[in-house]
Amino acid sequence: MSAASCLYVQSFIEKCLTAVGAKPHHARSLAEVLVTADCRGHYSHGLNRMDMYLKDIQTGICAVEGEPLVEKESAATALVDGNNLLGPVVGNFCMKLAIKKAKEVGIGWVVAHGESHHFSASRTLGTNPLSVAAPAEHGDSFVLDTATSAVALGKVELNERRGDPIPDGWGCDPEGHVTTDPKSVLTGGGLVPIGGSEATGGYKGYGLGMMVEVFCGILAGAQYSKYVRTWKVTDRVANLGQCFVAINPENFAPGFNERMSDLLSIQRDQDPADPGSPVLAPGDPERMNIKKCEEMGGIPYHINVVKYIVSTETRSLLPCDKIVSI
Amino acid sequence: MSAASCLYVQSFIEKCLTAVGAKPHHARSLAEVLVTADCRGHYSHGLNRMDMYLKDIQTGICAVEGEPLVEKESAATALVDGNNLLGPVVGNFCMKLAIKKAKEVGIGWVVAHGESHHFSASRTLGTNPLSVAAPAEHGDSFVLDTATSAVALGKVELNERRGDPIPDGWGCDPEGHVTTDPKSVLTGGGLVPIGGSEATGGYKGYGLGMMVEVFCGILAGAQYSKYVRTWKVTDRVANLGQCFVAINPENFAPGFNERMSDLLSIQRDQDPADPGSPVLAPGDPERMNIKKCEEMGGIPYHINVVKYIVSTETRSLLPCDKIVSI
Repeated sequence: MSAASCLYVQSFIEKCLTAVGAKPHHARSLAEVLVTADCRGHYSHGLNRMDMYLKDIQTGICAVEGEPLVEKESAATALVDGNNLLGPVVGNFCMKLAIKKAKEVGIGWVVAHGESHHFSASRTLGTNPLSVAAPAEHGDSFVLDTATSAVALGKVELNERRGDPIPDGWGCDPEGHVTTDPKSVLTGGGLVPIGGSEATGGYKGYGLGMMVEVFCGILAGAQYSKYVRTWKVTDRVANLGQCFVAINPENFAPGFNERMSDLLSIQRDQDPADPGSPVLAPGDPERMNIKKCEEMGGIPYHINVVKYIVSTETRSLLPCDKIVSI
Repeated sequence: MSAASCLYVQSFIEKCLTAVGAKPHHARSLAEVLVTADCRGHYSHGLNRMDMYLKDIQTGICAVEGEPLVEKESAATALVDGNNLLGPVVGNFCMKLAIKKAKEVGIGWVVAHGESHHFSASRTLGTNPLSVAAPAEHGDSFVLDTATSAVALGKVELNERRGDPIPDGWGCDPEGHVTTDPKSVLTGGGLVPIGGSEATGGYKGYGLGMMVEVFCGILAGAQYSKYVRTWKVTDRVANLGQCFVAINPENFAPGFNERMSDLLSIQRDQDPADPGSPVLAPGDPERMNIKKCEEMGGIPYHINVVKYIVSTETRSLLPCDKIVSI
């Protein structure tokens, strides 16, 4: 492992993106998301994915010109056309707008279509992620960021690469039966919803996945369900839908942050079922990774990620020796 | 089994509630909820629970005087004091207010404290249910109504009564380990979140349960987590929190109902993994039960529910022979 300074990685990604034609402030938005993912320990969603975005821009499947556009608006809502721009560009635009509305009327509910990157449906529902963050005191917070599938596809890929079976309840074969064979999930099968089988509540995860579909694709008038472009296929624009909600706690009962801190403490202070594994709150594993990065003065990348980045065409765009050597 | 006309059951419950002091329109709200639960096939949440509400009113743990009160309001939000009234009274008040706001500004987000009945936390999180409904065409709809625990406590109770073990992934023992012994879950143990163990995504269900806690108890300034009164304990008022959100699809992309119908069709038209079990959409099992009730001209109650109602003190309040004889 070698640690690269967050600022250097951020600047490296920005330079690569602008080199293929992204506007500087669009490149900054995407770079921030990728570096943040790495700092939080979700390497599958960080620097490792940069070349996919570079290809999306180079093939023209993702737009670099223009800005997101508000199509319809009320004091509390907005419908936004993402104009096929990079996901974080549309996401930041929508979230800022939602926060502005929440400051004014307590809630901002912004839905976007024409978004170019997002987890997509391999069958009739995608991993349909759901993220909720809420502030507590002294910089602490509740950060839930979860797919409504039992696991992310990357975990199945990892087991397949290692030759390991997957646990019962992660995925199914092309006939829809739960399987422990990762290859079968990756070739025509699919992930199963949170809860796994019928007996253990898989129908609940299926319902939650559909709920996300309703709030995103259906409400936004974007692609949904089986119409969503398959992951990594770049023969047509994605036109994905997303939903951004901001809630101003000041419009509700006073003392939100204090109660939030107390709730987090109650959870963390429970006696763990396994003495070696303390009870965590959503966001804690990522918080520990951020702390580790701060202590190391950079992000510890696996050598394979560095090799991968060095081996891509970005090598010809910019020197990436600094990532390797730090 | 004997079928009782919905109207008769509704009127029977209303009369029992007003006999112990509930206002007629409050009694009507609760009776509607209980009859609807029975019609939808959720007998555990219907007539079967009437005596619990009667007791709540008789002991004064639930208020019969007053109405819910708006404490704080914006164009899109409201904070409501439920004044310890019956759950459906507060629920209807909040949902009507949320719909009014959604008609005006696209979203209505109403949070209530001082609510007297709701599933409650036996450990540090309750079953924390989440319900989302969305209209499709021709009266069809998406209706998700799910606890964020793997199953409802009633299912564990049922297995215990029958002397059957519970499936792996429903509940844990007092030490927090997953168990198949229903007695252990009911005596000091607890339900586990959707997803069961760590390997199958139980941490996601845990996060979703906390999300519901944030939107209800925390946002409303009501009781939350371990402070929530234990289920069926009536030594103090509950002061529960709830969150009601109404979204006006007209504020977003045109054609919502058509897309919703299409999404429901896509799901239902999939080849089932088990040829004997067609793929259903959330709300379909309940829809089938409503159809059955319509065809029978009433609700088919199990004889034990009827016996239970007859055996309670309500017998002295009103004749319930008609429920038995129909």
